[in-house]
Amino acid sequence: MKVDAFVVDPRLAQDGIHCLDLPLCQLRLHNDARFVWFVLIPKRSGITEITDLDQEQYDQLWGEVRQVSAALKRAFTPDKINVATLGNQVPQLHVHVIGRFTDDAAWPGPIWGYGTPSPYTPEQATQRCALIQDALHDVKTV
Amino acid sequence: MKVDAFVVDPRLAQDGIHCLDLPLCQLRLHNDARFVWFVLIPKRSGITEITDLDQEQYDQLWGEVRQVSAALKRAFTPDKINVATLGNQVPQLHVHVIGRFTDDAAWPGPIWGYGTPSPYTPEQATQRCALIQDALHDVKTV
Repeated sequence: MKVDAFVVDPRLAQDGIHCLDLPLCQLRLHNDARFVWFVLIPKRSGITEITDLDQEQYDQLWGEVRQVSAALKRAFTPDKINVATLGNQVPQLHVHVIGRFTDDAAWPGPIWGYGTPSPYTPEQATQRCALIQDALHDVKTV
Repeated sequence: MKVDAFVVDPRLAQDGIHCLDLPLCQLRLHNDARFVWFVLIPKRSGITEITDLDQEQYDQLWGEVRQVSAALKRAFTPDKINVATLGNQVPQLHVHVIGRFTDDAAWPGPIWGYGTPSPYTPEQATQRCALIQDALHDVKTV
């Protein structure tokens, strides 16, 4: 049996809250209540670039990004969705899926490094995770 | 016959140079010689979000992103690849594929909005497009 020693990078672990698991990725809520900001982390060790994934994992990753994007749109009706994998600070492959609003603090600039994060209360985080979970269920069944 | 009135957004047209065409996307070199920065634009009209693409177009887009990422890695050996679709300023769907280096001007921050672009000479742009074209040929045939 192949054991894949996947561990979330400590910086990503500190910056977000584990919402739920998809087949390939862990879906996390980035802990900054100023934005609608989720992060998908493929549960595979030693992956830093999208080109490190095999074809099946690659297709699965972008399939899950599509589902999360559609769920985010359904749950939060943003003006724009930003999808990005940078990894300049934390090399472990992770994909940001962010709902942007024309009246959000950083609009129209990118949000990485913008100002000071505003952490959720535990209740707020739980509620936001429940919203994306319900919307994910809806987009899979419609 | 369905005619898809695809036109590159004027801002994207102004900011980059048409390198080559892939089956779905136009591949453009962003006109900023400080970075190794390419942009993929699906040649379909009225598309602003990845979720606007049908499943076949969606798979094709990320297949082309994978090819361009692999070619960029082969041609320029960057320390990290950044892949992103934001569209906060230009809504027409476009995907950035950027080779980052630990000694580039904006490292480790994102590059959008960083400093003042440094345009290529026509010869430099032609050479850079030729490099990605050759590398794309190589990654398709290996």
